[in-house]
Amino acid sequence: MKTGDGQAALLRRRLPILQWGPEYSGQTLVGDLVAAAIVSMMLIPQSLAYALLAGLPPQLGLYASMAPLLLYAVFGTSRALAVGPVAVASLMTGAAAAQIAAQGTPEHLGAAVAIAMLTGILMVVMGVLRLGFLANFLSHPVVSGFITAAAVQIAAGQIGPLLGIRTHGESLLEILESFLPHIGEVKPVTAAVGIAAVAFLLWAKRGLKPLMVGFGLGGRPADIVAKAAPAMAIVACTAAVWALGLDARGVGILGEVPAGLPKLALPPFDATLWTKILVPSLLICIVGYVESISVALTLAAKRRQRVDPDQELIALGVADMGSAVSGGFPVTGALSRSVVNFDAGAQTPAAGAFAAIGVGLATLFLTPLLFYLPKTALGAIIIVAVLSLVDFAALKRTWDYSRAEFAAMVATILVTWADGVESGLIAGVGLSIFLHLYATSRPHVAVMGQIPGTSHFRNVSRHEVVTDPEILSLRVDGSLYFPNARFIEELVNEAVAADPAIRHVILECIAVNTIDSSALESLETINRRLADGGIKFHLSAVKGPVMDRLKRSHFLHELTGKVHLSHFDAVSSIKPALAKSALQSALAPAAADR
Amino acid sequence: MKTGDGQAALLRRRLPILQWGPEYSGQTLVGDLVAAAIVSMMLIPQSLAYALLAGLPPQLGLYASMAPLLLYAVFGTSRALAVGPVAVASLMTGAAAAQIAAQGTPEHLGAAVAIAMLTGILMVVMGVLRLGFLANFLSHPVVSGFITAAAVQIAAGQIGPLLGIRTHGESLLEILESFLPHIGEVKPVTAAVGIAAVAFLLWAKRGLKPLMVGFGLGGRPADIVAKAAPAMAIVACTAAVWALGLDARGVGILGEVPAGLPKLALPPFDATLWTKILVPSLLICIVGYVESISVALTLAAKRRQRVDPDQELIALGVADMGSAVSGGFPVTGALSRSVVNFDAGAQTPAAGAFAAIGVGLATLFLTPLLFYLPKTALGAIIIVAVLSLVDFAALKRTWDYSRAEFAAMVATILVTWADGVESGLIAGVGLSIFLHLYATSRPHVAVMGQIPGTSHFRNVSRHEVVTDPEILSLRVDGSLYFPNARFIEELVNEAVAADPAIRHVILECIAVNTIDSSALESLETINRRLADGGIKFHLSAVKGPVMDRLKRSHFLHELTGKVHLSHFDAVSSIKPALAKSALQSALAPAAADR
Repeated sequence: MKTGDGQAALLRRRLPILQWGPEYSGQTLVGDLVAAAIVSMMLIPQSLAYALLAGLPPQLGLYASMAPLLLYAVFGTSRALAVGPVAVASLMTGAAAAQIAAQGTPEHLGAAVAIAMLTGILMVVMGVLRLGFLANFLSHPVVSGFITAAAVQIAAGQIGPLLGIRTHGESLLEILESFLPHIGEVKPVTAAVGIAAVAFLLWAKRGLKPLMVGFGLGGRPADIVAKAAPAMAIVACTAAVWALGLDARGVGILGEVPAGLPKLALPPFDATLWTKILVPSLLICIVGYVESISVALTLAAKRRQRVDPDQELIALGVADMGSAVSGGFPVTGALSRSVVNFDAGAQTPAAGAFAAIGVGLATLFLTPLLFYLPKTALGAIIIVAVLSLVDFAALKRTWDYSRAEFAAMVATILVTWADGVESGLIAGVGLSIFLHLYATSRPHVAVMGQIPGTSHFRNVSRHEVVTDPEILSLRVDGSLYFPNARFIEELVNEAVAADPAIRHVILECIAVNTIDSSALESLETINRRLADGGIKFHLSAVKGPVMDRLKRSHFLHELTGKVHLSHFDAVSSIKPALAKSALQSALAPAAADR
Repeated sequence: MKTGDGQAALLRRRLPILQWGPEYSGQTLVGDLVAAAIVSMMLIPQSLAYALLAGLPPQLGLYASMAPLLLYAVFGTSRALAVGPVAVASLMTGAAAAQIAAQGTPEHLGAAVAIAMLTGILMVVMGVLRLGFLANFLSHPVVSGFITAAAVQIAAGQIGPLLGIRTHGESLLEILESFLPHIGEVKPVTAAVGIAAVAFLLWAKRGLKPLMVGFGLGGRPADIVAKAAPAMAIVACTAAVWALGLDARGVGILGEVPAGLPKLALPPFDATLWTKILVPSLLICIVGYVESISVALTLAAKRRQRVDPDQELIALGVADMGSAVSGGFPVTGALSRSVVNFDAGAQTPAAGAFAAIGVGLATLFLTPLLFYLPKTALGAIIIVAVLSLVDFAALKRTWDYSRAEFAAMVATILVTWADGVESGLIAGVGLSIFLHLYATSRPHVAVMGQIPGTSHFRNVSRHEVVTDPEILSLRVDGSLYFPNARFIEELVNEAVAADPAIRHVILECIAVNTIDSSALESLETINRRLADGGIKFHLSAVKGPVMDRLKRSHFLHELTGKVHLSHFDAVSSIKPALAKSALQSALAPAAADR
């Protein structure tokens, strides 16, 4: 009976559709349908553009915008997250696939699909094993620096196509090298179309909604029209190319986009390939998850809804595996489309499923219309979309707050630009873990003395305190574990070597939440070394759980001194005379000034 | 003037010989000479044996026992550390060099010398940049497991040579595979010599000293004779082979060992080679340093002397570079020889220099005598030496103390045996950093309530407390930084989503020592999300340095609630009624029971 309940609960947790499905109503349906219509209008042009950004055929963008959305609707816990291709993950996929094979080859396409599969598998594994915390190791400065660097690089990579110049390269440096020497070869008609599209999209961001309101539209419909600006740009540019025959004047067009739904197939399983794509897939998995979960949590909080981070990993993983099986590339939760989805009134993940149906209809019936779509217009959409991700102000904020974290951020940006997204991200993560380990390896340690007339002990360098030459009182402000175990050893060694008068060392453990095996070994070593020098070693104010664990070792038997309830107890029992005057005061009511 | 003083102090720090040299006396000289004599007698056979262990010609062991010892005497801060070839580093060197070229080739020899150079350079760089803390990331269970695994593997690798069977392989698995099928091919005479040597050495460990005392020798001379057991074994075996012509009966002998001091030369500088040996050199550097510094600190503590960990890195690094330039392989501080050196009365690092002179004299005049030295005897010396490093009891101790650390230890051992020393060490370090990050990513967080009639707040699940349905009081037991930033975010999200009555969230920061940029971002996000849900966010008991830093951000301006001096202040100002009764009691003298 109870097991049955547990299984049912697990099933509801793993298939959130079982939670919201039964409560689905006509009113929910209306909200979801409106949101789906608006999101599809953004999604179709963006998905085509991001496929090109990854160096893939445009229809793969459409494929990546169907199955994943349907699967997320079943497995996802966010009610507003819009899943699909996104700029940064597409760039990372393109960079990784380009290392396997040249763009345009079947191997390149196969690698992109395999990356989607592996990314999905990694996400599901992380979700089931509750390893979502791994994403925490992308510190905020690193993520923020990386997104800015990637966005600038993406925008720079699209300037060439926008002007009709071919570019290539996996880093900003390579991109600039590939296109700056050809800056004189701008194709004027292509550039005119592209720059017009950029200008329109930039203006539309702020100007379209007020204009529509001026035309008498209500606030809500005006908003919807404004969100459709990229779709309008596409329609207008395509119509212009077709009507004016601009393709004959050098404007690159999309050409034939295969119609029809994707065929289901497994991606290539090849141990050599999968070994090569492991690291990029892991990075796409983590970056994608970090971006997605922060949007999901932010939107959920606005309506006080719940998002389950581990289940989100599973849902995004299944979505990625679905993308792979249907011939698409990696997807994740998209920042801009999720916000639009939420604002447009999406009530459940069904909105995503409806958007997928919208994309499916477009794939079935609209692809012939995409023939004359100029690539420069897709470049324009990408540029305008990623510019909103650039946040140089974060550099200033981080500089003001912490120089070390600023260094990690700048390193991430520069390495990304110089050597590509993968190296940049690895450098950033490596540097922040290093800085973290460095910081924890040297906890603050205070030499303490007694505040005269009280039972309180404080840092000798900050307070007027009295000390006994034979007693060294130390307080460690942090847990004792392997990153700092030897540091404490050396500190005690140094202090004792510097002062031959010392006969007792007392370590106050009030701030020590754990003592691991390495620290235990260090405490044993300290105890033994002090004993060799004729000095007793004591602990004071050891917390309950730490004491429980120490009792499972031999340390307490070997300890030359004692474990005292408080530091005052320790000093009092070692030097009754020293403590006497304090004791009298401590018993008086005024001692509550801690 | 001041700069001059600073420079002089730096010079004295970097060249510790300037500290102890001027005080050198006749009495010190006697102590150092006696210690040097004993250590040389251990060092000569061990250095030959460890050269063979690394797959190198025997004279390289002698070369590695001269220049490094002289250089350590100038740069070292430990008065008793005996530097030279050691078993584990020799095994690691051999394994790494074998990946570059087949044993016996000039490339293999060149790689070993280059590894010594790179190890030395890495150590000096780490010492100058004060990166000695990096060694802390070898947690105690990992080091202990690794040493045991390596020792077992070394012993297993010598069983073949001891019995006259050729073995090869970089892991225990490969070694066993290479020699078990040939177990029937034991050469009886070789095995007899080897097993006799092992039996003698094992007996000598405990039995030789009492026997000498029984023969009327004083305790001290008897001790010296006991330490010379390996040298005696070598002399006896060599004499037996020569006298009985055992080399003609299949006993492998050392053959011609080139006489004379090593010629100085730079190791091969080749970018491809150096890239390949970077990781092994780094691992040898860290393992060597960890072993060395723990011996040095232990011995220094016995006489309350100082050891400077960063300068030790520089000294060992210079020693390794000296080894490379004089054609040797990596060296470090040796556990057993250091203890012997200390017990024999070494007073200064000059003892090491005298030992180097002893080895030099042997290299000049004794190498012809080594011609008939049977390799099986060197195998016996290695087996007996490394068995003292095996510590399976540490597995039990670690299991009792922490299951997670036990897992890291077992993983280190098994990966070492299955895939070699490098993989084992990397797996162990990776796993312990992972476990550490995992632990810090989920700090303890308590929901607090007020102890009735007091100003104290405690964990609701451990104490009888009262709470207000509109106020959520949380205490985080740990610093807020990127590994746990999102955890706190999700925790607050969850708590608020679960209870619609909440109107105020107060975070008590009494245990928070730092808030980094990621955590600041999380606090801002929490604040914004709570505001979206109509909830105010407060902090209480923020420490001075943390507050100083927060003032450099915009967070305090955006905070919807306030920063309160104490948690009681926070609750009182939010809910004056709730606090009233408590306030009355808090002002009474009995409140000092915190």
